[in-house]
Amino acid sequence: MAERDITAYIEPTADPHQSEYVADHYKTRAWISGFTGSAGIVVITKDKAILWTDGRYFIQAEKQIAGSGFELYKMNTPGYPTYVEWLKTSLGNGDTLGFNGKVFSQASVEKLEEEFVGKDIKFIDEIDLVGDIWESRPELPRSTTFSLDVKYVGKSTNEKIEEVRNDMKVHDADYFLLSSLDDIAYLYNIRGNDVANNPVVISYALITLEAAYIFVDKEKINSEVEVFLNENGVEVRSYEEIMDFIREMKVDSSLIMEKDKINRWLYNAIPDGIKIINQMNITTKLKGVKNSVEIDNQKKAYLKDCVALTKFFNWIDKNINNIEISELSAQEKLLEFRKEQENFLEPSFDTISAYKENAAMMHYSASETSNTVFSPEGLYLVDSGGQYCEGTTDITRTVALGAITSEEKKDFTLTLKGHINLISARFLAGTSGHVLDILSRYPLWQEGIDYKCGTGHGVGYLLNVHEGPHRISAAPNDIAMEKGMIVTIEPGVYKEGSHGIRIENVVVVDEDIKTDSGQFMKFEVLSYCPIDLDCIDVDLLSYKEKNWLNNYHEATYNKLSPYLNDEEKAWLRYKTRRI
Amino acid sequence: MAERDITAYIEPTADPHQSEYVADHYKTRAWISGFTGSAGIVVITKDKAILWTDGRYFIQAEKQIAGSGFELYKMNTPGYPTYVEWLKTSLGNGDTLGFNGKVFSQASVEKLEEEFVGKDIKFIDEIDLVGDIWESRPELPRSTTFSLDVKYVGKSTNEKIEEVRNDMKVHDADYFLLSSLDDIAYLYNIRGNDVANNPVVISYALITLEAAYIFVDKEKINSEVEVFLNENGVEVRSYEEIMDFIREMKVDSSLIMEKDKINRWLYNAIPDGIKIINQMNITTKLKGVKNSVEIDNQKKAYLKDCVALTKFFNWIDKNINNIEISELSAQEKLLEFRKEQENFLEPSFDTISAYKENAAMMHYSASETSNTVFSPEGLYLVDSGGQYCEGTTDITRTVALGAITSEEKKDFTLTLKGHINLISARFLAGTSGHVLDILSRYPLWQEGIDYKCGTGHGVGYLLNVHEGPHRISAAPNDIAMEKGMIVTIEPGVYKEGSHGIRIENVVVVDEDIKTDSGQFMKFEVLSYCPIDLDCIDVDLLSYKEKNWLNNYHEATYNKLSPYLNDEEKAWLRYKTRRI
Repeated sequence: MAERDITAYIEPTADPHQSEYVADHYKTRAWISGFTGSAGIVVITKDKAILWTDGRYFIQAEKQIAGSGFELYKMNTPGYPTYVEWLKTSLGNGDTLGFNGKVFSQASVEKLEEEFVGKDIKFIDEIDLVGDIWESRPELPRSTTFSLDVKYVGKSTNEKIEEVRNDMKVHDADYFLLSSLDDIAYLYNIRGNDVANNPVVISYALITLEAAYIFVDKEKINSEVEVFLNENGVEVRSYEEIMDFIREMKVDSSLIMEKDKINRWLYNAIPDGIKIINQMNITTKLKGVKNSVEIDNQKKAYLKDCVALTKFFNWIDKNINNIEISELSAQEKLLEFRKEQENFLEPSFDTISAYKENAAMMHYSASETSNTVFSPEGLYLVDSGGQYCEGTTDITRTVALGAITSEEKKDFTLTLKGHINLISARFLAGTSGHVLDILSRYPLWQEGIDYKCGTGHGVGYLLNVHEGPHRISAAPNDIAMEKGMIVTIEPGVYKEGSHGIRIENVVVVDEDIKTDSGQFMKFEVLSYCPIDLDCIDVDLLSYKEKNWLNNYHEATYNKLSPYLNDEEKAWLRYKTRRI
Repeated sequence: MAERDITAYIEPTADPHQSEYVADHYKTRAWISGFTGSAGIVVITKDKAILWTDGRYFIQAEKQIAGSGFELYKMNTPGYPTYVEWLKTSLGNGDTLGFNGKVFSQASVEKLEEEFVGKDIKFIDEIDLVGDIWESRPELPRSTTFSLDVKYVGKSTNEKIEEVRNDMKVHDADYFLLSSLDDIAYLYNIRGNDVANNPVVISYALITLEAAYIFVDKEKINSEVEVFLNENGVEVRSYEEIMDFIREMKVDSSLIMEKDKINRWLYNAIPDGIKIINQMNITTKLKGVKNSVEIDNQKKAYLKDCVALTKFFNWIDKNINNIEISELSAQEKLLEFRKEQENFLEPSFDTISAYKENAAMMHYSASETSNTVFSPEGLYLVDSGGQYCEGTTDITRTVALGAITSEEKKDFTLTLKGHINLISARFLAGTSGHVLDILSRYPLWQEGIDYKCGTGHGVGYLLNVHEGPHRISAAPNDIAMEKGMIVTIEPGVYKEGSHGIRIENVVVVDEDIKTDSGQFMKFEVLSYCPIDLDCIDVDLLSYKEKNWLNNYHEATYNKLSPYLNDEEKAWLRYKTRRI
């Protein structure tokens, strides 16, 4: 910093593709600060080093940065400026801000520039000071790439590229530059394992009206995959060549890209005179709306996943009084049951296996130190999912391991009411998840309870467990819920130091009746797995709610029982009894 | 047009203040086209004249423009371009577009400019070609202005101007330019009668950190009002002087204004070098959040209004079998009852008095030709309101004049369910009306029914019956419902050729409980008037819904009965019986 006369240097938690989860190679913020949480940003000046992170990580961060010289600034906490506010007041005319443009989106840099309007602050944005000094930095991942057959994904790479080109033509665009890893994997029907739980391949893509390119470490592409790509009109180039291709774009041409997803370094390379059409990646919408083959496969994936879960909960029931079971051993056992299922590849995210008060932490991950042994009482929450050739799953159940309090029972029942109110809703075509969100919160709000997270998110197909463009959330968004969109419904109650409850099912949007008032939509349930009747205060349920639950349980029994042994079947029959 | 070489001329339905309702002087579009509906825009070229209007007016417009040379283009109808799309394809390089910049907002002109990017289209925006040839054009209105005492509005003009200045200081602004008539009336605590049902005074306002001006026809301001204004620090200038004041703004100063509300003509006069801060008028938010004095007064206004309505419905009940009653005679009678109330000034909008299928037209206004005589059967909908010194009212009731069909009963009950679901909701602070909207539609949607309008709108205080910034609507908006905001709740069912149902109450947002999850909000009801039990299918109501209705009716009886005679009291007792 001194050599280059940099006043402040920023290190975020990001990779060049704006991924939600990053490969170890990109954990520069964790390495420099010692703080290993999944979110945070660091600012370093001549005499200060500050780490910003959010409420999930205050305690962990304090411990991990103790003695390091880093100071903790708490996000969303009165008295603490944001890192942008801090920079705004700390930097003055003539100062220089340094950062690695590869790991900042163009949109985020433009926001910083706006903040500094009227001030003379210089940006040095093509350096990687942390990377430069990280001696034992992990290599870039080199997982093997594989292609997916149309029988899994329903649409060939060729067809998808044509759909992209049709959209480009509507916008008079010559180029479409794509950096989002799940969008590239979707478009080219390839998968890899470059990020844990996210079967993506680190790469860039560029599509023109005549050609389509993937820029990727060629060692990852075996000849079979290369032939597959070539046959679908995709040329394979080295990862670094993307820069040459960008620099050589024809002047006066126009380029579709999403500034939130394209990093600063790529953006800087775009020649002057190119018309930039900044819009959501074309592939994001295509990827978010599943075709009938994908939906049919996802049903198979959920069937397998729910068989594994049913066997798992039966196993707990049988063994809770006999052997020691802990959060960690339980999640190991669950993974075993999943591994028994055909075409299971890996978990789709870190399992949340949380007993009693640990479940009040929404993003809890059991560790050797936090690992809690079960007793035959209280609530156990498990939020988990798998990657299968037939798609990605995500499901949460909360079960009673024995006696639970009346407060827990009431909270569970209110959560269930919210779940049913949303999952059984008929809604007018064009309605967004932002509008639907309140249906799930309503029964909880009437009792003064809210959950401080979204109600649901899109899920990829053998891809990232979180994907857009739609979501069910109190945060504004105006993306309509369209036929074919898969989304989770997961209201909950989280009481610090006491208990956590979440009931999560996954649904696909479908058309319902059409009347004089227009087309109505509904949710078709994908995940059938028993909801613990022992946690329900039946008196709080309406006739309609009981009816929904009975029908759901009847379907659950019918779908799962063919895959269970007699003992498991009997157990499931009881667990899905009518109320 | 030929003289000035204008290719196309646009005439909208607007005044220089972007008012929802305009004075007769500004009904240029109606005059030139012959079409008198409240919404529409006209484009005239050398050989074409086109009128755009919306679905409410297709039949009326066809009739009124027959033989005039105007062609009807239907808004929101497949096969018809919008007027902007039409202009975009019809105008080419070198063409000239003419319009009266006084009646176009700066924002709407900027949108037009965007559409023509890359084309060489000249704008001539300071002409009034229709006004120039309109020989018997009505004069500008010259109603008398009066001031409102703090006992009515709760806050002095002086205090309000200080609040505005505090906000200007936050934004480092030197000027605040205001053109919205209801905002000016609110800010300066004055009212007039320049637009029917809207007690506003045609004027502009300019506020600096030291001075505040109103630009208004001085003949409207008597010495009493002038003294009132001067004592509150407001200087009165002639209506035309606004242009001089804008032209003389100090260079390098900054100006807050809302481009959606400031007309093009004013905008053109702003000197170069002024920094424009384009944001919602400061006064809109201040006006939208009522203070406790305003709320207490509004309660009085609704009490008077509901007494009038109760007497009216009792009168219909008594006379339906004895005398001829029609939509027009009924609304006359209702006006008589309102006039009996103290401090009643005028209706707050054109009464919708609609029998049977006429009520299916949401904005029906009975005329001599449409006027329908009542029979002792079917549904009658009346949507009406008054201007009182104690505030503005707006309320709708739908009642059975005798036997109704089971479909009507079901539709009424579903409407009531939606009404109760929303009006009794507890919701987290920060929730917008956009999110709340679905609560009211939900029971109707489950039966495949939607109403094609918003659920609720803000209401002024002795001002416009529609005011922002909040609304309850399927159209996206992120304005949180704040303590003190008054809003209508008016779900409905509209079946063409058959019947129309609307149940409208008015509420004020208030704080509810505060819990670990945060501050919750609720609605306090302002309007207490019986909801016709004869229209309800009690079997469709839940216990909670019946309970809400019984409590509402009990409160209605207790509030209204002191103002009724014995016969009316007995009638109301029966009309508010427990179910």
